[in-house]
Amino acid sequence: MDSDFGIARELSDLQKLRSQYQPELPPCLQGTTVRVEFGDRTTVADPSGSHTISRSFPHTFGQPIAHFLRATAKVLDAQIISDHPAARVGVVFCGRQSPGGHNVIWGLFDALKVHNPKSSLLGFLGGSEGLFAQRTLEITDDILASYKNQGGYDLLGRTKDQIRTTEQVNAALDACTALKLDALVIIGGVTSNTDAAQLAETFAERNCPTKVVGIPVTLNGDLKNQFVEANVGFDTICKVNSQLISNVCTDALSAEKYYYFIRLMGRKASHVALECTLQSHPNMVILAEEVAASKLTLFDITKQICDAVQARGEQDKHHGVILLPEGLIESIPEVYALLQEIHGLLRQGVSADNISAQLSPWASALFEFLPPFIRKQLLLHPESDDSAQLSQIETEKLLAHLVEEEMNKRLKEGTYKGKKFNAICHFFGYQARGSLPSKFDCDYAYVLGHIGYHIIAAGLNGYLATVNNLKNPVNKWRCGAAPITAMMSVRRYGRSHGASTVGIPSLHPATVDLKGKAYDLLRQNGSKFLMDDVYRNPGPLQFDGPGADAKAVTLCVEDQDYMGRIKSLNEHLDKVRAIVKPGCSQDVLKAALSAMSSVTEILSVMSSPSTGNTPF
Amino acid sequence: MDSDFGIARELSDLQKLRSQYQPELPPCLQGTTVRVEFGDRTTVADPSGSHTISRSFPHTFGQPIAHFLRATAKVLDAQIISDHPAARVGVVFCGRQSPGGHNVIWGLFDALKVHNPKSSLLGFLGGSEGLFAQRTLEITDDILASYKNQGGYDLLGRTKDQIRTTEQVNAALDACTALKLDALVIIGGVTSNTDAAQLAETFAERNCPTKVVGIPVTLNGDLKNQFVEANVGFDTICKVNSQLISNVCTDALSAEKYYYFIRLMGRKASHVALECTLQSHPNMVILAEEVAASKLTLFDITKQICDAVQARGEQDKHHGVILLPEGLIESIPEVYALLQEIHGLLRQGVSADNISAQLSPWASALFEFLPPFIRKQLLLHPESDDSAQLSQIETEKLLAHLVEEEMNKRLKEGTYKGKKFNAICHFFGYQARGSLPSKFDCDYAYVLGHIGYHIIAAGLNGYLATVNNLKNPVNKWRCGAAPITAMMSVRRYGRSHGASTVGIPSLHPATVDLKGKAYDLLRQNGSKFLMDDVYRNPGPLQFDGPGADAKAVTLCVEDQDYMGRIKSLNEHLDKVRAIVKPGCSQDVLKAALSAMSSVTEILSVMSSPSTGNTPF
Repeated sequence: MDSDFGIARELSDLQKLRSQYQPELPPCLQGTTVRVEFGDRTTVADPSGSHTISRSFPHTFGQPIAHFLRATAKVLDAQIISDHPAARVGVVFCGRQSPGGHNVIWGLFDALKVHNPKSSLLGFLGGSEGLFAQRTLEITDDILASYKNQGGYDLLGRTKDQIRTTEQVNAALDACTALKLDALVIIGGVTSNTDAAQLAETFAERNCPTKVVGIPVTLNGDLKNQFVEANVGFDTICKVNSQLISNVCTDALSAEKYYYFIRLMGRKASHVALECTLQSHPNMVILAEEVAASKLTLFDITKQICDAVQARGEQDKHHGVILLPEGLIESIPEVYALLQEIHGLLRQGVSADNISAQLSPWASALFEFLPPFIRKQLLLHPESDDSAQLSQIETEKLLAHLVEEEMNKRLKEGTYKGKKFNAICHFFGYQARGSLPSKFDCDYAYVLGHIGYHIIAAGLNGYLATVNNLKNPVNKWRCGAAPITAMMSVRRYGRSHGASTVGIPSLHPATVDLKGKAYDLLRQNGSKFLMDDVYRNPGPLQFDGPGADAKAVTLCVEDQDYMGRIKSLNEHLDKVRAIVKPGCSQDVLKAALSAMSSVTEILSVMSSPSTGNTPF
Repeated sequence: MDSDFGIARELSDLQKLRSQYQPELPPCLQGTTVRVEFGDRTTVADPSGSHTISRSFPHTFGQPIAHFLRATAKVLDAQIISDHPAARVGVVFCGRQSPGGHNVIWGLFDALKVHNPKSSLLGFLGGSEGLFAQRTLEITDDILASYKNQGGYDLLGRTKDQIRTTEQVNAALDACTALKLDALVIIGGVTSNTDAAQLAETFAERNCPTKVVGIPVTLNGDLKNQFVEANVGFDTICKVNSQLISNVCTDALSAEKYYYFIRLMGRKASHVALECTLQSHPNMVILAEEVAASKLTLFDITKQICDAVQARGEQDKHHGVILLPEGLIESIPEVYALLQEIHGLLRQGVSADNISAQLSPWASALFEFLPPFIRKQLLLHPESDDSAQLSQIETEKLLAHLVEEEMNKRLKEGTYKGKKFNAICHFFGYQARGSLPSKFDCDYAYVLGHIGYHIIAAGLNGYLATVNNLKNPVNKWRCGAAPITAMMSVRRYGRSHGASTVGIPSLHPATVDLKGKAYDLLRQNGSKFLMDDVYRNPGPLQFDGPGADAKAVTLCVEDQDYMGRIKSLNEHLDKVRAIVKPGCSQDVLKAALSAMSSVTEILSVMSSPSTGNTPF
């Protein structure tokens, strides 16, 4: 299998052009010195979990955040690292391939070599299985040449997504020890970075000198938290999907006879669906988060779509485009409960053929109500994170089927007087995942690769590379690193999350924030999108000219720069301290004391475990 | 319904940029004079049909071909048309929307206005139904503004695709008369241009002064013949599909666990599948023409794919990408025969539920062998051209299913020792059809629109606009027009063609030429594509930089310029005549006579009806 990895290959003209594109570096990563400033020790967003997390991660919890600084930056306690012994670093792809992954490797390689040409980078062939089996390929300039700014993970490949069982963790430790690695860089999403944190802790505990570094790469865009604004791959995926959705919208408007039901790859959370909606303005989107928050049943959702079809029909519109995130199916309460029963039986070893008979009466009733193709798909074994095999469950067909039945009923009863309802179903995912990465993803991934090296040079373990201020140009990007444990939380209930993570500290997929600005933008435009066909076509991904530098709408509307705001807060605190010095007036002291005691009281109440909300 | 057509709309940045792109005109269409040279009277490729065609088209058969010339061209008998009375022209979209269609209207509009600002262009709203109902929208600069170089047919929309029944033809004639149209321009493919020819004949017969002009626009790329090199829309469709196919190839190579079965929209012929294969190098493509030529059964095709999977498995490759044209299903002999029986019964009014019981024993046996989802799809009513509803029949799922069963069998028997076979299925069509058109399609469509006006100015009826030399830059393009009847043929048998066209002169979809250069290119590379994963990613459609001017591979490898070669032949004949003049030597005369008599004898034999082959 390995023989094919990393081989030079024929590139198309556009691929060749892209392979010559050199991503920019922000000022703080230029030059050959690493300057790092450490911030406060970290805590977690949900205080109720902090005790459990600190107990599970005694060596790696509570480490400070790190900022990487420009060579010329005047910061008093910045640590300047100018000694760069040759480092041996391993790198591995984990999880769903996301456009831009290759550039992480390229950035890491360049940073290693610029600081010490004797450093070496070993790629593990075939993902985590390659790590366990110690199958490596030494990365060189020649090998990278035809993979720079290219899509896919085919430089190294990937296989199983997890490094979790004792056996797997031991195999990883053995590999790092045998190969004398100074660091192991894991490229992946929520699950893979949880594994990275666990590996870092285990390595520290067992005195293994290999540092573990995570890089946020996932097309799902769900590794978002206080420290991480975006993930590599999300930008490209949304652009390619939006291109296709827009084409389908144009098609719907030209022929005026079909409703298109489009399911979008993106796992449990609906980030991809939301972003694509904001880019291409389809008639409707049903976010999993809305369904979960309002506890909408299959019947409710069907009715909602039917009412929309009917309202459009009354305006003589018999076409439309409806987006569905692949996680939708799990967010429907009764389907989720049914899936839990099925997965429970599967775990007990009940064969798929016998499950139907062993379901509880109500679950059985729902199961029998569903069309046969969906029944078969619901019976599939759950994935490694305990969720259903979302990519295989054709929710779009199920809903199209239910809507068609209901519209036919309404037509018969005379409550709907329009034309016969016709649906065409699509699943967009695989055809976007292998795309050439957008300029944004090329830049972001390359910069994250560089940061990976800076983390290693600073001797940090269990950190994720971060970039803030992403919506601004690259020269304004702020680079840093945060302990992965600071992004963790502990879920007490199984609802909509894998049973295996209940009670265990983990990264969890960030869901779409229904109070956030991006969702608000959708709500404001919802009825216009629904009725007025204000379709927008961002066009195919461009690498030159207007549009080439476009960024995700959700990235641009959100207030980000969490770290920047923490800095501002510290400036305020410093200012208070500077004003209220011994010698200041009694009045000033009194005012400050009164104001600050009220502030501390409010914040204590807000962040006490009992009322603590997880903001992310 | 009409209220939405032609309205201004919000464009994305890229759409705006594209709307400002001005296609180039070849020299012969520049300026304000129309210069036309008439060539020989036309015949048809298959002489056996010429009698039937001439009888069916007494007014429009045998008209000469026309070339449009540069203002400065020195051609003795060129007709110069400098008087341009105000013309009223109608235009209608027919058939599947194809990227570039809007530019035909734009080109036609510009040409009309540049020759006489008082001329007017009426677009029929909602396709041929709008024509029958006389629903029009007068095209203006303002209306065109947001549709220039944009995809879809949503400026005017489209509905039913045919203008064929007596009632429909009469309605069209009434509309043209009532609206006092000097000409009606029909934008469409094979079926629509057959209808255009019929309309032209009927109008001539009934002394209706409206001239009918056809424009070859179809994403299928199957309106190809002696006169027509390419169709508007094909270039874009193949580029968008190749982008997606390549992405899937990259995906397959990254994860190494799936076989992707991708069905491509494109009707009976496999032009789209062939072009996409040459652009993106997937592992395998099964052309409908190959299957028909070798009379491969469903079992043969399954075995062929399984053997490929097995051979790759022996090299430890458990992934791959296989393309299937949507017309494949009809080209499989036994499935075709089954479909004929089903369609026969449907035409007799037998309901879908009762058909299975009334099939002949062998057809019934095949039907029962097929999985339920395919059975349901085969029972759908045939389309207006008597073919099956190809877009609705999931051939990719059928083959994936059969291959999986066979691979499981081989695995069990031990003849196959690789990993379990896993397939993912796709149908690519709708998501490409609404794309922003490529630069080539923008230019080609705009130029064809201009030619449409030149045809009208020359007073021609029943002509199709043509451009030759398309593989060269626009300034080398040769513009002309040919009678649609010269592209017709008469099919004597129903095999793989709609029963309703048997014996009736029609345009027929050109199939992939298995002796052609493009197919040869595929054959030469077939085993490399199959085994070596030499995937190539042309990337997303670009409008700037390298790749933006790329043309279809099949367009570039074929020897084209049929009209140019007819010109060269005439030059040879003129030369012979010039040499062999009264006064030349006896020897020269003798040699010429002997050579020419042998030439005429060979050509007579080749083009006699009994042995006549249809070269296109």
